[in-house]
Amino acid sequence: MKIKINKSDLDKHISIAQKAISNKSSIQILEGIVFTAYDNKLKLSSTDLELSIETQVDCEVLEEGSIVIKSSIIGNIVKKMPNDIITMTANDEMVNIQSQNSVFDIACQSAMDYPPLPDVEDEPILTIENEDLNLAVRETIFATSNDETRLALTGILFEFNNDNISFVGLDGYRLAIKKYNYHSNEETSVIVPKRAFNELIKILDEKTTEIILIKGHIAFINGSTKMYSRLIDKKYIDYSKIINGEYKTSVRVNRNDLINSLDRALLLTTGASASLTKLTFEDGEISINSNSEFGRLDEKLYGKQEGDNIQIAFNTRYLLDGLKVIEDDEVLLHLNTPLSPMSIYPIHDTDNYLYLVLPVRLSQ
Amino acid sequence: MKIKINKSDLDKHISIAQKAISNKSSIQILEGIVFTAYDNKLKLSSTDLELSIETQVDCEVLEEGSIVIKSSIIGNIVKKMPNDIITMTANDEMVNIQSQNSVFDIACQSAMDYPPLPDVEDEPILTIENEDLNLAVRETIFATSNDETRLALTGILFEFNNDNISFVGLDGYRLAIKKYNYHSNEETSVIVPKRAFNELIKILDEKTTEIILIKGHIAFINGSTKMYSRLIDKKYIDYSKIINGEYKTSVRVNRNDLINSLDRALLLTTGASASLTKLTFEDGEISINSNSEFGRLDEKLYGKQEGDNIQIAFNTRYLLDGLKVIEDDEVLLHLNTPLSPMSIYPIHDTDNYLYLVLPVRLSQ
Repeated sequence: MKIKINKSDLDKHISIAQKAISNKSSIQILEGIVFTAYDNKLKLSSTDLELSIETQVDCEVLEEGSIVIKSSIIGNIVKKMPNDIITMTANDEMVNIQSQNSVFDIACQSAMDYPPLPDVEDEPILTIENEDLNLAVRETIFATSNDETRLALTGILFEFNNDNISFVGLDGYRLAIKKYNYHSNEETSVIVPKRAFNELIKILDEKTTEIILIKGHIAFINGSTKMYSRLIDKKYIDYSKIINGEYKTSVRVNRNDLINSLDRALLLTTGASASLTKLTFEDGEISINSNSEFGRLDEKLYGKQEGDNIQIAFNTRYLLDGLKVIEDDEVLLHLNTPLSPMSIYPIHDTDNYLYLVLPVRLSQ
Repeated sequence: MKIKINKSDLDKHISIAQKAISNKSSIQILEGIVFTAYDNKLKLSSTDLELSIETQVDCEVLEEGSIVIKSSIIGNIVKKMPNDIITMTANDEMVNIQSQNSVFDIACQSAMDYPPLPDVEDEPILTIENEDLNLAVRETIFATSNDETRLALTGILFEFNNDNISFVGLDGYRLAIKKYNYHSNEETSVIVPKRAFNELIKILDEKTTEIILIKGHIAFINGSTKMYSRLIDKKYIDYSKIINGEYKTSVRVNRNDLINSLDRALLLTTGASASLTKLTFEDGEISINSNSEFGRLDEKLYGKQEGDNIQIAFNTRYLLDGLKVIEDDEVLLHLNTPLSPMSIYPIHDTDNYLYLVLPVRLSQ
């Protein structure tokens, strides 16, 4: 294999391929990226056997071929190379990387030993705007579980209906749902590992992504990059039962003011200990109280309240997680009783985003 | 104690006082800062028994008094307070911190239990420009030792002569010396713990610092802030014997090009393993070679050489440390034999800065 390639192009595509390299893999060859030169293109592929990436970039191919280079080494070297044109010359054991007066000779391996990536020829079920995809992931991924014994909840539920799609994150204490109007060709739902969405949103360009479903896998096609992920093959909780839409108290409040108060409440905790914040809604006045061994905080905020007065307590971090991903200036809070969940909606988009969080029972 | 104070003033001076708080102290009260309100000023003091800081800021004192508050708590709270005017009201057990609708009540302690800080009334031995002080510390501190069994070398040797002062860092493998023309009132030298200089340069304002020597201590006075440090009471190595000024080879080379080559040589090492770089000076051509289990690097640079050709090898990181703190575009290298140290000078300031580094013996 021999190619000449622009340094910044190569750097960018190595970064993309690195997203599917796991640093806990025990299979040595999976620490590498496959570089395949053909037809004036360089294809970079990588997999950790759960997540796979294939990305292509134009280059001058002087000799076709395919090799595997350790991802961390080649990534660092390309970043530090002096000039904009890099020449890579490889046999199955050694790759020579040259730019100006700088020459690296690095060990590499034959691509024959690298596991093959899935091959997807199916039609996309959907094409989604990257901006929408990015927001949906940000607004739901934080509410997924990290508990591997509840495997289904560690992923994002991705639902396709005739008229809309939804993303759901749920960990047993809170629930986040994001909906969009997109027509898909079939009605189905899959559970996508959060890692796939997490890496995907880092490599999205400015346009759109095609989504393809294959048995046991989902594929995302974004420009010259394809990402494949295994799906989580478990049954998801029927979350619709949790949402009933009823409420006795409705409060409209400035989102930033509420975030700032809760951020201050967090100051009273150290390390991983839970912070509890009590909210008292009384005729539009919201009292925020938190205390710990270090001291106590009392704050007052004002909102537009309809319905009953209520006192309720929450894990401060859970409230903050949801409030921080919302982009509106104001949020709408719907409450029922001190023991039933509170719903939080962005004020301008109450139909398409919901964050629902369970309260903590107050002693006494 | 009761004061009203500007939030950003308070925040800034807490940050200064925090520099003398050690996070490994086993004495609980030393986690705190002493706040003393008197005469329309707030004085903040802190010590870890090695390093002490005293800093003052104007405020409105409604009631004089003195209390100790845990440094991390008060620092975080003040940063997050909503408004520019903070009211602090304290008795010996509890301090109430209020701004707008936000009220914290935090545990505090009486200042009676806090160890007293040194009292310095002596005349300064010297007044130094902060810019000079900052550069001297940056250019020498990295060459000090971290080996507590060689205590003298863990500090910076600070020498005062009639016409100049010098800062020296030395760890047995390399030596950095910075000189300035400053007249001091007496000829003496002290060893200052590197932590003192490290924290001092973080709190320097734009002007000058007065330096006072007291038995066993050094004090720095910078605006409204005083810092006291214990000195290291050990004998320093007579470093003048290491420098003889003779050389057989002199090479002038672009500093950035040399740094970039050595940065690339470092890519071939992982983690804490030593990186070795071989330099071959041959009639103005400098070959840079490095190799490891991962591969090899060959580079060429060009410089202005006078004297003999020579091949010599160094710990790559040691070379880089010295080259990175120099500010000139070019450096002058003076060499003797493959087993004697190389001297590195900034091209425009060969009299005032020297970095000297021992080579590594090449096998074969």
